[in-house]
Amino acid sequence: MIAVNLAASISGVKVPAKMIVREKPNAFKLFFLLRGSVVPSIAPQIIFAGLMGFLVYLADEYFPDQVPNLTATPFVLLGVTLSIFLGFRNSASYERWWEARKLWGQLIIDTRSIARQAQTYIWDQGGDVMSVDEKYSREQEIKTHQRKITLLCTGFSHALRHQLRGTDCRDDVASFLSEYERERLGAVRHIPNFFLNLLGGEISQILQKQFIGEVSARNLEERITSLSSVLAACERIHNTPLPFAYNLLLNRTAYIYCFTLPLGLFTSLGAMTPLITALIAYTFFGLEALGEELEDPFGTSAHDLALSTMSRTIEINLLETLNEAELPEPIQADRYYFP
Amino acid sequence: MIAVNLAASISGVKVPAKMIVREKPNAFKLFFLLRGSVVPSIAPQIIFAGLMGFLVYLADEYFPDQVPNLTATPFVLLGVTLSIFLGFRNSASYERWWEARKLWGQLIIDTRSIARQAQTYIWDQGGDVMSVDEKYSREQEIKTHQRKITLLCTGFSHALRHQLRGTDCRDDVASFLSEYERERLGAVRHIPNFFLNLLGGEISQILQKQFIGEVSARNLEERITSLSSVLAACERIHNTPLPFAYNLLLNRTAYIYCFTLPLGLFTSLGAMTPLITALIAYTFFGLEALGEELEDPFGTSAHDLALSTMSRTIEINLLETLNEAELPEPIQADRYYFP
Amino acid sequence: MIAVNLAASISGVKVPAKMIVREKPNAFKLFFLLRGSVVPSIAPQIIFAGLMGFLVYLADEYFPDQVPNLTATPFVLLGVTLSIFLGFRNSASYERWWEARKLWGQLIIDTRSIARQAQTYIWDQGGDVMSVDEKYSREQEIKTHQRKITLLCTGFSHALRHQLRGTDCRDDVASFLSEYERERLGAVRHIPNFFLNLLGGEISQILQKQFIGEVSARNLEERITSLSSVLAACERIHNTPLPFAYNLLLNRTAYIYCFTLPLGLFTSLGAMTPLITALIAYTFFGLEALGEELEDPFGTSAHDLALSTMSRTIEINLLETLNEAELPEPIQADRYYFP
Amino acid sequence: MIAVNLAASISGVKVPAKMIVREKPNAFKLFFLLRGSVVPSIAPQIIFAGLMGFLVYLADEYFPDQVPNLTATPFVLLGVTLSIFLGFRNSASYERWWEARKLWGQLIIDTRSIARQAQTYIWDQGGDVMSVDEKYSREQEIKTHQRKITLLCTGFSHALRHQLRGTDCRDDVASFLSEYERERLGAVRHIPNFFLNLLGGEISQILQKQFIGEVSARNLEERITSLSSVLAACERIHNTPLPFAYNLLLNRTAYIYCFTLPLGLFTSLGAMTPLITALIAYTFFGLEALGEELEDPFGTSAHDLALSTMSRTIEINLLETLNEAELPEPIQADRYYFP
Amino acid sequence: MIAVNLAASISGVKVPAKMIVREKPNAFKLFFLLRGSVVPSIAPQIIFAGLMGFLVYLADEYFPDQVPNLTATPFVLLGVTLSIFLGFRNSASYERWWEARKLWGQLIIDTRSIARQAQTYIWDQGGDVMSVDEKYSREQEIKTHQRKITLLCTGFSHALRHQLRGTDCRDDVASFLSEYERERLGAVRHIPNFFLNLLGGEISQILQKQFIGEVSARNLEERITSLSSVLAACERIHNTPLPFAYNLLLNRTAYIYCFTLPLGLFTSLGAMTPLITALIAYTFFGLEALGEELEDPFGTSAHDLALSTMSRTIEINLLETLNEAELPEPIQADRYYFP
Repeated sequence: MIAVNLAASISGVKVPAKMIVREKPNAFKLFFLLRGSVVPSIAPQIIFAGLMGFLVYLADEYFPDQVPNLTATPFVLLGVTLSIFLGFRNSASYERWWEARKLWGQLIIDTRSIARQAQTYIWDQGGDVMSVDEKYSREQEIKTHQRKITLLCTGFSHALRHQLRGTDCRDDVASFLSEYERERLGAVRHIPNFFLNLLGGEISQILQKQFIGEVSARNLEERITSLSSVLAACERIHNTPLPFAYNLLLNRTAYIYCFTLPLGLFTSLGAMTPLITALIAYTFFGLEALGEELEDPFGTSAHDLALSTMSRTIEINLLETLNEAELPEPIQADRYYFP
Repeated sequence: MIAVNLAASISGVKVPAKMIVREKPNAFKLFFLLRGSVVPSIAPQIIFAGLMGFLVYLADEYFPDQVPNLTATPFVLLGVTLSIFLGFRNSASYERWWEARKLWGQLIIDTRSIARQAQTYIWDQGGDVMSVDEKYSREQEIKTHQRKITLLCTGFSHALRHQLRGTDCRDDVASFLSEYERERLGAVRHIPNFFLNLLGGEISQILQKQFIGEVSARNLEERITSLSSVLAACERIHNTPLPFAYNLLLNRTAYIYCFTLPLGLFTSLGAMTPLITALIAYTFFGLEALGEELEDPFGTSAHDLALSTMSRTIEINLLETLNEAELPEPIQADRYYFP
Repeated sequence: MIAVNLAASISGVKVPAKMIVREKPNAFKLFFLLRGSVVPSIAPQIIFAGLMGFLVYLADEYFPDQVPNLTATPFVLLGVTLSIFLGFRNSASYERWWEARKLWGQLIIDTRSIARQAQTYIWDQGGDVMSVDEKYSREQEIKTHQRKITLLCTGFSHALRHQLRGTDCRDDVASFLSEYERERLGAVRHIPNFFLNLLGGEISQILQKQFIGEVSARNLEERITSLSSVLAACERIHNTPLPFAYNLLLNRTAYIYCFTLPLGLFTSLGAMTPLITALIAYTFFGLEALGEELEDPFGTSAHDLALSTMSRTIEINLLETLNEAELPEPIQADRYYFP
Repeated sequence: MIAVNLAASISGVKVPAKMIVREKPNAFKLFFLLRGSVVPSIAPQIIFAGLMGFLVYLADEYFPDQVPNLTATPFVLLGVTLSIFLGFRNSASYERWWEARKLWGQLIIDTRSIARQAQTYIWDQGGDVMSVDEKYSREQEIKTHQRKITLLCTGFSHALRHQLRGTDCRDDVASFLSEYERERLGAVRHIPNFFLNLLGGEISQILQKQFIGEVSARNLEERITSLSSVLAACERIHNTPLPFAYNLLLNRTAYIYCFTLPLGLFTSLGAMTPLITALIAYTFFGLEALGEELEDPFGTSAHDLALSTMSRTIEINLLETLNEAELPEPIQADRYYFP
Repeated sequence: MIAVNLAASISGVKVPAKMIVREKPNAFKLFFLLRGSVVPSIAPQIIFAGLMGFLVYLADEYFPDQVPNLTATPFVLLGVTLSIFLGFRNSASYERWWEARKLWGQLIIDTRSIARQAQTYIWDQGGDVMSVDEKYSREQEIKTHQRKITLLCTGFSHALRHQLRGTDCRDDVASFLSEYERERLGAVRHIPNFFLNLLGGEISQILQKQFIGEVSARNLEERITSLSSVLAACERIHNTPLPFAYNLLLNRTAYIYCFTLPLGLFTSLGAMTPLITALIAYTFFGLEALGEELEDPFGTSAHDLALSTMSRTIEINLLETLNEAELPEPIQADRYYFP
């Protein structure tokens, strides 16, 4: 849950400089930070690599000239390939993570724009001769539609979050639906798509009631299609991991490399072998673990996107447009991170 | 057939956590996994490289100082170039694979959007004075058009899948066509394009019958043009492999590199030569084989895209919009993969 | 001329599996394939590098300790830079090639879409009271316009191909023009642009005759603008090579590197020097030659795009929409390649 | 604050050649430039690395054969990985910086276009029969709207700058608002979004007053949606740093690498150890520091974007369209940089 | 000024094969080409590096064992980093250069399209009952507007070129303006933007005179907005160099690397030291200089874009659409290059 200062700055609350959550830690602290680091998850591999180094060193001490010396050559050959390949994997993972963040940025754009457009383009464009009562009742209807459209956008962003995290959205989205819609919700298979269809229904009604021109309705339609793209693209990232064979190949090569490395270093390094082996293992396994973490950016681990914070922010922004009296609180950071 | 949990999550069925198909295997299991690995397809090359290593070692044992020692230098020089080049090839292949997945994501967006738009924008916008009967019959006609448009989208996604896999789509798409259209199908050369033309025909009819405004018809037209782009882009990926000379150059260099490698290592590695040679051969040939597999992502091998699952999902989603009683079942994963 | 199976699959003809043109050659055959390989064009350089190796080896045999030994160090230093740079050049060239292919994919999308839109949106939207004769004559006029628009698209794709290959398109495009247009063709400077202007003329006419609504005409206009983009982007790739200094720098460094390489290897490799030098020269010059070939993808050499096949396919697809009786044959592959 | 000559050339003022602010410094000067260099911020690390080198050298002088010699091998292995990884980090940071610049370019496009469109498409399209007075008063109203729309765009660009720099925009934007709007400003949470909503309000009014056609209003709407995208994308870059673990991993590896490097060099370099260590530390820490600086390009340090200059330029350009008499001065460069 | 054959092929003049300006030089000539090479600009650095090599060699001859031997290790460590970093810089510069070319391609697309659209969509759509004289005078007015719009596009392309090259455009653009506009030109700050505003004025007039439908005017508006994007994006590339610290870091490291390199090579290379040092310096400085040249692609040096040729071509194409009798000549290449 990255996105420090997110709730604050997206929702526009001004924070004094000293409240900034993540100060840059100094170099010394950096060394011993664990939260946000990948060290905890790869500690076993690092320790094991170090142990291998120690064993090789011991074996060489007690049985000199018995331990096979692989020399550095094969490790140089393999190391370059492994590095280039790790680099490729990292770029691919990072791009997925960044694309996911862009998609949620697009979600913010679209929901804000729909809320704005609902206020701009929905007004009574119907018949000329009308009684005052009729006029008033149509005004009320327009407000209901504007409100409904805005609420459906909010509901969509919650539904999308739950869909991507595999949790049940029904409690979070119920308040944005009518009673009838809530009942239908039970049988619905794909809830975010259900919200888009409801939005479509609203458009159809305001068009038929002449509350919006056909040309201006295109503005709303374009944003709804864009929400549909956000939805499908998030599903794509969530459902289609990198080809599994990449992980296999990388994992296997990294393991074999790091665990046999002492055999290439012990003659020149002697007692330093375990340390250096552990250091190199740290780099390789660290990069590998990071790549794997960023691959699916919609979870709830330390580097995943702050979906809860962002959908809460959308809710606040959109309710504000409707001049609601009670706004929910922005989500507070849990030390360095936002959920 | 990647795309784990795809059917489940795209079609929106909630799965309990324990049903997740691909659990992350532990490090030990990872080592001996074959399904999803490229090892089986490159085993001959690895074994051959190992054998070469063994032969060189034997030759050196029996005829000392007779085997030419190439030293590590040429392999370092070549190794860097080969690695960078393999990296380039991999990126290119991966990008094709990922673009293909994006295109199918776009297909999902477009078909869902067309189904939604058909419900939103198609309503009777015709003459004012009309008998009740006429009105009713026009209502029926509108429903028929909405249904037809939705079915044609479903049919298009099946036709596209068969087109890309080189199989016969006639059985799968017949149910989405009228009798007359089925008859014409026999003579049609390009079936997915035929579906797009039929969709165009529907638009033309509802426009002329005043069931949709000219402006709103643009929404549908834009999605159909987008389907046309998906079609042509999938064909591009399927029909235009990477320049053949890349494969040639990579293959040849990798073969020569791996099979002569023992001559560069045997003096320093001795009896370990076959093992290290096999390991390095595994990395190079593995990357090379993976790149080749991802190049055409529309096949039915382990890392190809789950086209069947996705087109089934589209079918379910779209039929649901039409409130069909009988929906087909989502496709079940075959152990780790979806077809 | 890549794009195997292209004619077959784009035009939608089903081919039995055994007719697939390019089977994957086995590893042994791969080694000795020449067609599609870059070997023939770089053979002189490889042989020359090998000869240099042989000369250095001989010189060292006859005049021991007289040949300057450069050691491997400078070649390691230069080799990394050269590899990274070759990698950059390759990516840039490949992206040009792939962009060119995408542009022709866009051409297919646009022409197919215009043909479909001509059938969908062009119908009599004019006056209400009309005699039967007038109605009939207007129907005929509409068909003429639909046909003309479709033919002009076909003609554009032929004209574009000839423009990019520097050949004379007049014979190929004459049949898509009226007599008067054919006459004007002689004085026209930019033929593909001329076709776009003719298309514009058609739009203008059907708008003024009320055969299409102003809104629907936007669909056609967007596709014509897209054709204009395809045209200008193809010209960009064709007319603007990579900065010439890249070629110079790469060429010079590669030549100096490969021809002095024996001086760095002969002490450790002895009689193997010529072979290893030739092998490394093969990799460097091979990559370099490939990059140069892909730079301008519109030629007629082995890796250039199958422009003839694709424009023929467009012609077939479009004529089919018009229900023409006589369709031209798809282009047959010349062994592995399509022209 | 890059963007030399920006104010001059964007606002179109012609500058004589000798006024060009940043002349290319000659090679000698380049060496000792500090402003714009990252040296000051990484001096401690460089000095510390040099000291380590000196200590190792001294230790080896006084206690020969006591200092553990790590040899160059582990540093070659680590160095390649570290370099590739630094390369990846740099690309990612640079792309964020460049994307941010593109977004502000888009801001310039959108604000200029809105100003132009306001002059082009807003004119009296209302009723036919009107008194001269009514006509005149409507003309005045139109001018007020054109002016207001242009001012709101200017205000938006100032508000965005302050939002991204975390400063208070109220003084800078007050002059573009009406009294009533200024009062509301106090309670507004998200000021740039507030401006977009005000722009929406203007569109709604001119539509209802028939000062613009529904179709032409789409032009303005598209630009406002684009402003909304610029806003959300800038917030994305500002609020979502690169995954923190990347910084951790890079920092730690670079520190360990540089501070243990003397142990790998002292046997071959002797008294030169401190110098070479410091040089290599300069490269690694320099790249690392640069990457970190470019990561958030909206600050006010030496390489951040010239937001003040650009928003002043927008103000000048837009006020000029309104034929204002008093234009603010372009911002002057502070030696080499623009704020 | 690249873009060989540009004038010829864009303006569509057919050139016989032997007139092709830049033939591929043979390998021998390539070696000694200076024009288009970066050698002249980096000759001092290469010579200096060679001299350093010679000095080190001499010093070692006369004072054996006195010259500090740095060994190859630090140069291998630094070399990899420097190469990767140079690669990054090159990609970034090349992408700027290529984006600039794409922008001018877009300029060609937009101007051609506006000229075509002016012919297609501007016709008398006004009142029904009109005298023959009135009709005729309106026809004349339409032709004047079509001509004016086309001329303003031509003028814009000239104004953009001058803006980017920092030269005075007034002579070149005067002929496309009316007397009144020429007078205003003196006070205008941003001339290309002035042209866009004039284009907007034309649209406004033809809309109010009912010479174009509101829907069709959107086609023109979209192209003008696209011209606005081209303008702002060219300014972005021109005004925002790569972060200056990159140049500093690269320059410094390259200088230190190349000038100390002899100390790492002289023991193994002896008298060959100067030559090898110069060769490596050539590669590093060459890449560095090329990157710097491509960074701002709008100048008039050898690798800059052929802006003059392209804007002349636009002029020819657009005047031809207007059936002008006297067309300017295409620009002739100055040996290998177009200005």
